Amino acid sequence: MRQSGPLPLDPDVAMSSSLNARPAILALRSSKIREVANAGMGRDDVLPFWFGEPDEVTPEFIRNAAVAALQGGDTFYTQNLGIPELRDTIAGYVSRLHRPTPVESVTVTNSGMSALMLVTQALVGPGDRTVILTPMWPNLVEIPKILGGQAVTFPLRFTPEGWQLDLDRLLATLTPDTRLLYLNAPNNPTGWAIDRDAQKAILEHCRRHGIWILADDAYERLYFDAPAGQPDVAPSFLDIASPEDRVVSTNTFSKSWLMTGFRLGWVIAPPPLTDTLATLIEYNTSCAPGFIQQAGVAAIRDGEPVIARTVARFRTARDHLVARLNALPGIRVARPGGAMYAFFQVDGMTDSLTFCKSLVAEAGLGLAPGIAFGPEGEGFVRWCFAADIPKLDAGLERLEKVLLRRKAA
Amino acid sequence: MRQSGPLPLDPDVAMSSSLNARPAILALRSSKIREVANAGMGRDDVLPFWFGEPDEVTPEFIRNAAVAALQGGDTFYTQNLGIPELRDTIAGYVSRLHRPTPVESVTVTNSGMSALMLVTQALVGPGDRTVILTPMWPNLVEIPKILGGQAVTFPLRFTPEGWQLDLDRLLATLTPDTRLLYLNAPNNPTGWAIDRDAQKAILEHCRRHGIWILADDAYERLYFDAPAGQPDVAPSFLDIASPEDRVVSTNTFSKSWLMTGFRLGWVIAPPPLTDTLATLIEYNTSCAPGFIQQAGVAAIRDGEPVIARTVARFRTARDHLVARLNALPGIRVARPGGAMYAFFQVDGMTDSLTFCKSLVAEAGLGLAPGIAFGPEGEGFVRWCFAADIPKLDAGLERLEKVLLRRKAA
Repeated sequence: MRQSGPLPLDPDVAMSSSLNARPAILALRSSKIREVANAGMGRDDVLPFWFGEPDEVTPEFIRNAAVAALQGGDTFYTQNLGIPELRDTIAGYVSRLHRPTPVESVTVTNSGMSALMLVTQALVGPGDRTVILTPMWPNLVEIPKILGGQAVTFPLRFTPEGWQLDLDRLLATLTPDTRLLYLNAPNNPTGWAIDRDAQKAILEHCRRHGIWILADDAYERLYFDAPAGQPDVAPSFLDIASPEDRVVSTNTFSKSWLMTGFRLGWVIAPPPLTDTLATLIEYNTSCAPGFIQQAGVAAIRDGEPVIARTVARFRTARDHLVARLNALPGIRVARPGGAMYAFFQVDGMTDSLTFCKSLVAEAGLGLAPGIAFGPEGEGFVRWCFAADIPKLDAGLERLEKVLLRRKAA
Repeated sequence: MRQSGPLPLDPDVAMSSSLNARPAILALRSSKIREVANAGMGRDDVLPFWFGEPDEVTPEFIRNAAVAALQGGDTFYTQNLGIPELRDTIAGYVSRLHRPTPVESVTVTNSGMSALMLVTQALVGPGDRTVILTPMWPNLVEIPKILGGQAVTFPLRFTPEGWQLDLDRLLATLTPDTRLLYLNAPNNPTGWAIDRDAQKAILEHCRRHGIWILADDAYERLYFDAPAGQPDVAPSFLDIASPEDRVVSTNTFSKSWLMTGFRLGWVIAPPPLTDTLATLIEYNTSCAPGFIQQAGVAAIRDGEPVIARTVARFRTARDHLVARLNALPGIRVARPGGAMYAFFQVDGMTDSLTFCKSLVAEAGLGLAPGIAFGPEGEGFVRWCFAADIPKLDAGLERLEKVLLRRKAA
């Protein structure tokens, strides 16, 4: 340590109350999922289904690609928008799944999260009005607030047949002064997937009023209801939008290729916006690590069997969990069309945060409280079913015991 | 590809002019260094000294730590603030170099760049006034603008003895309504390092007016003027500030441990602000990859010999380059006290962008134009000397030829 000590503080000058961020940032919601998880910290008897993360290590061939790049000395800066090989690979992948997509539309990002932040920085300024479909994973609702934007939530409606979108009311909420619509489908936490007719109506409306559509397509490959003979991919705005549309799709390697720990994602955007994203990446993270980008190339090139296996595994897990949940007393759950969550309602339960904390304390069961996804999620609980059947069954037993005890009380 | 084709566009509705970002983002400066580098794209005969990047691969023991973690299956989300082992390691490192630092002050980030963006998101909102010492690497000047803040530049003054800070004028510029002072020392591009007396005066002034100090300490270990017996580390605000001060230090693994491609950095901040940074990280990148954090642990634990060797190598390179530059006709350069750049003035040259492009075209020499670092940098050129002597000599020969040709013209 240097010899020169600290300058003494004058108590009249030091004000610890202002030792924190500006008010808009202090007002951001922190994660209520983490609040529940923290309550179980240090206990190794908790069965965790709270986070949105598959329970498998990244496939070896993907890890090996990163290892080979590290051993080969790939440890320098890369281009802001990503290495050409990965951008080409993503362009080819999106072209195969959706529509011809030039490499000039592709931006590589340090996570799907970063993709959402970058696009928001580009498009949403102070006072800008954004509309967000809820229930929604909390991050999307908070991002515009960091930029000074306004986040108007629009709730889906729960029915025993599934979550439903009131399209007319949504279009009425998308007023001409709206800058951006955030839409995540297949949706976290509800599993709701949008259909083609609704997409067309939304795109036409947004075209008319110059509203940007930001489609968070993180779960597009975790889609369980593709017609026979069609690829396992959810309907995408990219299928129906042209490159001249104000439509941006963000994506991630996390879920489809089991790569949460790699923090790698991408954006498909009109080429002029892509140029701007390059500038913004310079000022956010500068680039994604080159050896991680090499892992991304391997994942897309050789990873279709991984996705097929994962979709089959999750479909089985979904069917099993939904059937068993619906057989429990006082539980109602709709079969999710995509993603990896059962979002279920518990009869008479009105404080999901307290309920989930008590599940941890009383039964060692880790689930995510519905309130974490907005006020529309209150009364619900999210269960990530990216896990094997015995583990799901063990969790179901624990839940049943608590429910029976509640009923007896 | 799905069968459903694109919705036809109505030409009255499509407006390609608005297919880009909001005006404040379009007004951001993109990198003039990249503009010069792009001019040399595809030429393999260019000697590149334009980027701020050491010319060596990351040491093997650091790469091996990442490889071992990847092979061991470390591919899941980590804590927002970083894995406990890395936070502890950083806290110990900063405590050794500067002052006792609790782990609650440490935030791990996806690059030093991300550290600067996160702290700015926390502290700078629409209309907030920030002051930035220049010449400065362009990124720091642009970040507050993304958040709607105002960036007031304050220039250092060039003298043949070195770049100098007019302290009284700086304090006058730090008006009570200033939110934040950005200060990068040792400085990119000038190599200027701040002395202890100036730090004390700035800290006292900022305490009085409640102004935050953001010290970008990326180059603190690339410091060539440490007194004998003292560690190779530049004077830091952390040495003299207390944990209750509005002082934040950002840092990176990129330069000291030759890890640009890993995108790993950290923040030292008052603990209340650290809690807020955790929330902001969730909404920016969620966390740094776990296997990269393991590389960071190895770097700090076993990397002091790397730093000692690097400092010795760069000191030799600096002395060699500065002596030879000063011997060239019409060149003036001050000996930089830190960082890894010679920032030299060229007699009669008033358009550094054109000059640097012509160096590429005529001589295959890649340098960074001074204008990239703000108007105060015009007339100057930056040369990154993180390279070996034969390569520097080859570059010097090319520069000399161009200068002689200019003189003859």
